[in-house]
Amino acid sequence: MAYEDTLSLKERGTAHTPDGHAQVANKDVVRHILDHAKAEGRTSLTAPEGKLVCDVYGISVPKEALATTATEAAQFATEIGFPVVLKIVSPEILHKTEAGGVLVGVKNAADVVQGFATIMENAKRYNAQANLLGVQVQQMIGGGQEVIVGAVTDPSFGKLVAFGLGGVLVEVLKDITFRLAPATRDDARSMLDGIAAAEMLKGVRGGEPVDREALAGLIENVSRLVSDFPEISELDLNPVFASKRGAIAADVRIVLDFEPPVERYRPSQEDIVRQMNRIMKPDRVAVIGASAEDGKIGNSVMKNLINGGYQGEIYPIHPKADEIMGRKAYKSVLDVPGDIDVAVFAIPAKFVAGALTEVGKKGIPGAVLIPSGFAETGNVEGQQEIVAIAREYDIRLMGPNIYGFYYTPKNLCATFCTPYDVQGKAALSSQSGGIGMAIIGFSRSAKMGVSAIVGLGNKSDIDEDDLLTFFEQDENTDIIAQHCEDLKDGRAFAETAARVSKKKPVVVLKAGRTSLGARAASSHTGALAGNDRIYEDVFKQCGVIRARSLRDLLEFARGIPKLPTPKGENVVIITGAGGSGVLLSDACVDNRLSLMTMPADLDAAFRKFIPPFGAAGNPVDITGGEPPSTYQNTIRLGLEDPRIHSIILGYWHTIITPPMVFARLVVEVKEEMKARGIEKPIVASLAGDVQVEEAAEYLYAHGVPAYAYSTEIPVAVLGAKYQWARGAGLI
Amino acid sequence: MAYEDTLSLKERGTAHTPDGHAQVANKDVVRHILDHAKAEGRTSLTAPEGKLVCDVYGISVPKEALATTATEAAQFATEIGFPVVLKIVSPEILHKTEAGGVLVGVKNAADVVQGFATIMENAKRYNAQANLLGVQVQQMIGGGQEVIVGAVTDPSFGKLVAFGLGGVLVEVLKDITFRLAPATRDDARSMLDGIAAAEMLKGVRGGEPVDREALAGLIENVSRLVSDFPEISELDLNPVFASKRGAIAADVRIVLDFEPPVERYRPSQEDIVRQMNRIMKPDRVAVIGASAEDGKIGNSVMKNLINGGYQGEIYPIHPKADEIMGRKAYKSVLDVPGDIDVAVFAIPAKFVAGALTEVGKKGIPGAVLIPSGFAETGNVEGQQEIVAIAREYDIRLMGPNIYGFYYTPKNLCATFCTPYDVQGKAALSSQSGGIGMAIIGFSRSAKMGVSAIVGLGNKSDIDEDDLLTFFEQDENTDIIAQHCEDLKDGRAFAETAARVSKKKPVVVLKAGRTSLGARAASSHTGALAGNDRIYEDVFKQCGVIRARSLRDLLEFARGIPKLPTPKGENVVIITGAGGSGVLLSDACVDNRLSLMTMPADLDAAFRKFIPPFGAAGNPVDITGGEPPSTYQNTIRLGLEDPRIHSIILGYWHTIITPPMVFARLVVEVKEEMKARGIEKPIVASLAGDVQVEEAAEYLYAHGVPAYAYSTEIPVAVLGAKYQWARGAGLI
Repeated sequence: MAYEDTLSLKERGTAHTPDGHAQVANKDVVRHILDHAKAEGRTSLTAPEGKLVCDVYGISVPKEALATTATEAAQFATEIGFPVVLKIVSPEILHKTEAGGVLVGVKNAADVVQGFATIMENAKRYNAQANLLGVQVQQMIGGGQEVIVGAVTDPSFGKLVAFGLGGVLVEVLKDITFRLAPATRDDARSMLDGIAAAEMLKGVRGGEPVDREALAGLIENVSRLVSDFPEISELDLNPVFASKRGAIAADVRIVLDFEPPVERYRPSQEDIVRQMNRIMKPDRVAVIGASAEDGKIGNSVMKNLINGGYQGEIYPIHPKADEIMGRKAYKSVLDVPGDIDVAVFAIPAKFVAGALTEVGKKGIPGAVLIPSGFAETGNVEGQQEIVAIAREYDIRLMGPNIYGFYYTPKNLCATFCTPYDVQGKAALSSQSGGIGMAIIGFSRSAKMGVSAIVGLGNKSDIDEDDLLTFFEQDENTDIIAQHCEDLKDGRAFAETAARVSKKKPVVVLKAGRTSLGARAASSHTGALAGNDRIYEDVFKQCGVIRARSLRDLLEFARGIPKLPTPKGENVVIITGAGGSGVLLSDACVDNRLSLMTMPADLDAAFRKFIPPFGAAGNPVDITGGEPPSTYQNTIRLGLEDPRIHSIILGYWHTIITPPMVFARLVVEVKEEMKARGIEKPIVASLAGDVQVEEAAEYLYAHGVPAYAYSTEIPVAVLGAKYQWARGAGLI
Repeated sequence: MAYEDTLSLKERGTAHTPDGHAQVANKDVVRHILDHAKAEGRTSLTAPEGKLVCDVYGISVPKEALATTATEAAQFATEIGFPVVLKIVSPEILHKTEAGGVLVGVKNAADVVQGFATIMENAKRYNAQANLLGVQVQQMIGGGQEVIVGAVTDPSFGKLVAFGLGGVLVEVLKDITFRLAPATRDDARSMLDGIAAAEMLKGVRGGEPVDREALAGLIENVSRLVSDFPEISELDLNPVFASKRGAIAADVRIVLDFEPPVERYRPSQEDIVRQMNRIMKPDRVAVIGASAEDGKIGNSVMKNLINGGYQGEIYPIHPKADEIMGRKAYKSVLDVPGDIDVAVFAIPAKFVAGALTEVGKKGIPGAVLIPSGFAETGNVEGQQEIVAIAREYDIRLMGPNIYGFYYTPKNLCATFCTPYDVQGKAALSSQSGGIGMAIIGFSRSAKMGVSAIVGLGNKSDIDEDDLLTFFEQDENTDIIAQHCEDLKDGRAFAETAARVSKKKPVVVLKAGRTSLGARAASSHTGALAGNDRIYEDVFKQCGVIRARSLRDLLEFARGIPKLPTPKGENVVIITGAGGSGVLLSDACVDNRLSLMTMPADLDAAFRKFIPPFGAAGNPVDITGGEPPSTYQNTIRLGLEDPRIHSIILGYWHTIITPPMVFARLVVEVKEEMKARGIEKPIVASLAGDVQVEEAAEYLYAHGVPAYAYSTEIPVAVLGAKYQWARGAGLI
C-alpha cells in the first residue's frame, strides 16, 4: 500500500509566497514517502504519492481528496471548486474507465452525490470482489498551453531540470531545454525563452500569455526537489497546464534510484590551488626517465626544459646515469636533496606505478604522466592502480597519455613537443594530443601569446575544472580556452566555470557533439559524450562561450583578450565597402549583436564626413573612393560618441587609402582616444589584394582583431566577447 | 453572383490517374471562373469557385452540392457519404453559425431531411428578407495530420508552391518549405522531407503515416494550377487533412492579380552566348576615357590591359590625345577601323549615355561600365536611360558601378584594380566591388587559379544567369562561384542554374540573409533581399551549393575543382590523431557526409597495419607515433578498396612522420593509384607545429585540399563536392 493513505487531506498543506516560491516546511513528508517506497522495494512512486511530494514543494497539482461517502464527496468538491472529476479508488480496479468508474465535468454538489452512487454501483457490477476504498474527488483542469517540466540525472552533470512544450510535434523537434538543478528563478525564467517555440508562451494568434512567474516558480521548485532528494532519479510533469491563471501539473511520474552515485575525488579549492601552483609554476622539476639519447621522449623533455629557458632546478632521474645533459642524475626522486614540485614521467607505462610510489614517498604534489598505455589502450586496471597510489600519497596526476604542458611565464616546456616561447595571456588545454599540436602551430603562426598549453589526455585526475581553478587565480592568464571530448565531472566543471567566467572568459570546444563524433570519441578516449543539448544549455547557464569549431576556439582565444570589455550593446559598422557592410550585418545577426539604431543627430554628424551618395544609418557606408581622413573622422566620431559601444570596420583596398595607411590611421585614432580614456572594442574585416594581410597583422598586433578576406570571423570574435560580458553581468 | 451557380454537380468531374496526378481536361472551366471574377472586379474567388478550380486540377476538396429541397439534400448526402455538414446558402447571411444555419455530423438521410427544414426555418427567423438559395451538403472531413499547401508570387522567383504543417506552433517556428512552380513530383516529395517536422508525416507515437503520394500529388497539382494561370497570385489550402486515406483541402482561398508582371529583358541562350563570348573573350577592346595620367581610372585600365599581357588590339578613346601608352588613340569608337568586341568605360556617369550611343552605332556587342553615379546614388533615370540605349542597339551592359572584369585565359584585366595572373578553372563574380577585391586578394594569397573575376555592380543588364550561361560553355571554367545581394530575375537564374549545375558546380553566397543584412543591402544597392527561406529552398532545388560565409565561397571555389567526383557516399577517416578523428566526425555530420560502416573484412585489413591499441572502425585511428609506412599502407588500402569512395586524412605532427614526409607520401600514393586508374576525393586536416602549413600548401598544389589547424574546412569542402554531385545526379 502506498504512503498517501496514511496522510489526511489537512496534512498536505504548503505555505506559498505570493510569487509561487514554496516555503518547504515539510521535507520530512517527502523523506517518509521515499523511505516507504524504498522499504517496499519500489523504484517509483504512485501517482498519489507523487502529488503529495509536489504539494510539499509547492508544485501545483489538481486538488483532490478521497471521499468514502457521497456526503463527504460533495463536501470535498465544494471545497475544491467545481467542476470536478470523480474516480473510483480500488486496488483491484486498474482500468477505471472500463469499469465505469470515472465521471468528468461534474458541476454541482447534487451531481456529485448522484455520481458517487453511480460509480460505486458500476464498480461493484464490474468486480464484485473488489475492495472499494472510495471515490477520489479531483479538481478538473485543462486549457492554456500544455508544457512539460521534468528532471533527469546525468552521469556527468547530475541533476538537471528540463522544460519544453507538450505534444508530439515538440517531441519530434526535440525542443527541450535543460538547466543544472537547483536552478534559480532567473535560470527558470531563461528556460521559458530557451526553447525555439518560446513565442507560444506569450500568446499567439489571440491566445493568452501564460503566467510566466507561476511557471518559472514550478520549474524552480522541481529543481529544488530533485536536488534535495538525490534518490529521485527522474521526474516528469506531463502535461502541465500553463495559463494566465497559473501552472498546474496534471500528471506526476517520479522514478527512484537508491544506489548512491559514485563519489568523485574532489579536493577543496584551496588544495587545488596549492597543488596546481606547485605543478604549473614549479621551482624544482624531476624528469623520470630523463635520457641523453636522441629520439627518446625523456631526451626531448630534457632538451625542451633546458632550451626553453627554464630557470628552476632540473633533476634527471635515471637508473644508471650519473649526469644527463650537464645535470647531475639520480637513481630515484628519493635520492634528490630537498623538495621537488613536480615530476615529469617519460618512462613506459609498466614502470609508472613504481616510480609514482617513490614520488609519493618524496612528498611531490604532482606527476605529469606523458606515457600512454593506460585506459586508452584498454589498460583500465593499470590506470586505477596509479590513481590509487595518487590518492594514497595525495599526488595530483596530469594525464596519462599526454604531451605534457607549457607554462610560458616560467619558460617551462615540460613536454616532448617543440619549445614554445610566445608569451601572452591565453591559457589553452586539450584532451587530445593532436589538438594540442594544432594549438601550438596556430599560436606560433598567428603570434598568439599564450600563458599555458596543457594536455589532459585520459584525465585520470586533473581535469578541466582543476585548470580553471588554477588559471582563475593565475595573474598571467586572462582567458581560458579548452578542448574536451567529455567532462569527467560535469557538475564540478559547471560550478567552477560559473564562478571563473565571471572574472575571465572561458571558451570550450566540446568535441563529439554529433552522433558520429560521439561514437569516435568513445572509441578514442572512452569519452561519454552525453546529450549535446545538455552541454549547450549548461555552458550557457555557466557563462561558458561555446566554440563550434577548432578555428573558433583558436580565434576566440586569440581575439577576445585583445578587446576591451564593451559597455553596452550598441554596435556600429563603418565600412568603405557597401558589400562588406551587408555581410557584416548578416554576421551581426548570426552572432547576436545589435546594430545600433542611429539617432538623428549622430546620423547627421556621420553624414558630414561622407559623400552625399554614401549611406549613413548603420552600416555607415563611407563608400570606396574616400581618402584616409574620411576613415579617420568617422572612426573618431564612433569612438567619441558615448552612445556607441563597439565598432566593426569594413575596409576596401583602394589606391587612395592603401591597406597600411588604413591600418596605421586606425591605430592612431585608437591610441589618441585611449589617451583620452576612451576604449571600445574594434574589429576589422579587410577586403583587398594581398597587402591587406600585412595590414591585418599590424592591426591585430595593436589590439584590433582584423581579418583579411573574411567578414564573419571578426564579428564572431566580437560576438564571443559580448557573450562573455553578458554572462559575467558586465553589460 | 459567383460562377459556381452556373455549373451543375456533374460538370465538375476530373479524371485522375491512380497516383493522384490530374489529367486536366477542363482548363476552360478555370479560365471562365477567372474571367468572371475579373469582369466583376474581384481580386479573390469565392470559396465555391475555389473548390471548382481545385476540382479541375485534381486537388481534393470535400464533396459538396447545393440542394434546393430536402429530398435533393438527402439524395446528395447519400451520394457523398455520411456524415455530412449542412450549411445555409444565402448572399445575405454571412454569419451562418450565428443564424443557426450550420449542422455538423448529420448521420443519415432522415436526419438530413429534418436538418434541411431546421436550417431553412432558422434562417428565415434570423433574416426574413434573406434570399435563401438552399442548403449546401458537404462531406465531413477531419482527422489525420493537418498541413498547409499554398502558392505565392515572389517578385524575383515568380510562382512558388509552399508546404508546412498546420497549426500555430508551426507558424511560430516558421517551418515552411518552398519550391519553384511548376514543381515535379520529385520536388513535391522532397518538400515532405524538407520541413523540420517531417517525422510527423511518417506517423509518430502510434499515429498513422499519411499517404505521401496523395499529398505530393496535391502539391504538384497546386504548382501546375498557379503556373498555368499567372493571375492567381496567392493560393492557400489551409488546412489540408492528410491521412493514410488521402489529402483533402478543407478550405480554399485564392487571391487574384490581373496586373501583368513586369517583363524582364531575357535574350535567348544563343544570343547570350554569342554576345558574352565577344565580351569575355574579346580580340579588340576599346577603352573609353583612356588616359595617360597616373591616378585616373582610364590610366589604370590601360596599364592593366597592357601589363596584364593581353594580346588583342587595344583602342584608347580620348577626345584630344593622339596616342596613349604607345597605342593610337581615337576621338570616338566610330573612328576605329573594323569591329570592336567590347568597350570599357572609364568616364564620368554624365558622359556615359553619349558614348554608349556611339558604341551602339558602331555595333559593339558589350559595354563594361566602370563608372558609378547611377542607381546606387539615386540616379535611377540615368540608369534607365543607358538601359534604353542598350536595348535600342542590342548592347549588353556589365555594371554600372563595377571594378570591371578579368578573364585570365586571354590575360585580360579589363579593370582598374591590380592585374591578376594565376590562371585556373574557377570563375568568380561579385555584386560588390569590395567583395571582388577580397576575391582577388584571397585568390592570389591562396594561389587559387581563376578563369575569371567579374564585377556585376548595379546589374542594369548582365547578371548572374548571363554569366552562368557563358561559363557553362567556357572550356576554361570548371566551377562558378558568385556573390550576390539579390537576384534581379530569380526565375531566370534558377532555370539557368538548374541546367548549368548538372555540368559544373555553382556556388552562391547570398548576402543579406538576415533582417539586418537585408536592410543594409537595400541601402547599399537597393537590393530586394527577399525571403531567405525561398533562396535556401530554390538553391537546393536547382543544385546550387550555398556558401554560408565569404570564406566558404572562396574555399569552395578553390577546393571543389581539385577533387574528382566521388562515386558513392562511403567516406572513411584515416587519422593519426584520435582527437582530430572526433572533430572530423562531427564535421561529417555537419556537412551531411556518411561515415562508412566498416565491413568486417576491411576492418581486419586496416587492423593489420595499425598498432593493437589503435582503433579500426571509422575513423581508422592509426595512433600518433606511427612511421610513414602506416599512413602509406592505410591510405593505399583506402584508395584500393572499391567500397570506399572518399578519404579524409587527419595528420598529427610527430618526429617519426614529419609534415613534409606525410605530404609527399600522400601525393605518392595518390599518383600511384591514379596511374592504376583509381581517383577518389582526398582532403586533409593537419594538426601540428607551423611546418604543417608548408605541407598543406604542397598537398593542395597536388590535388589534396588540406588545411592546417582546422578540422572543419576540409570536411566542408568535401561536403560541398558531395552536395554538387548529388544535385547533378552523379551519385
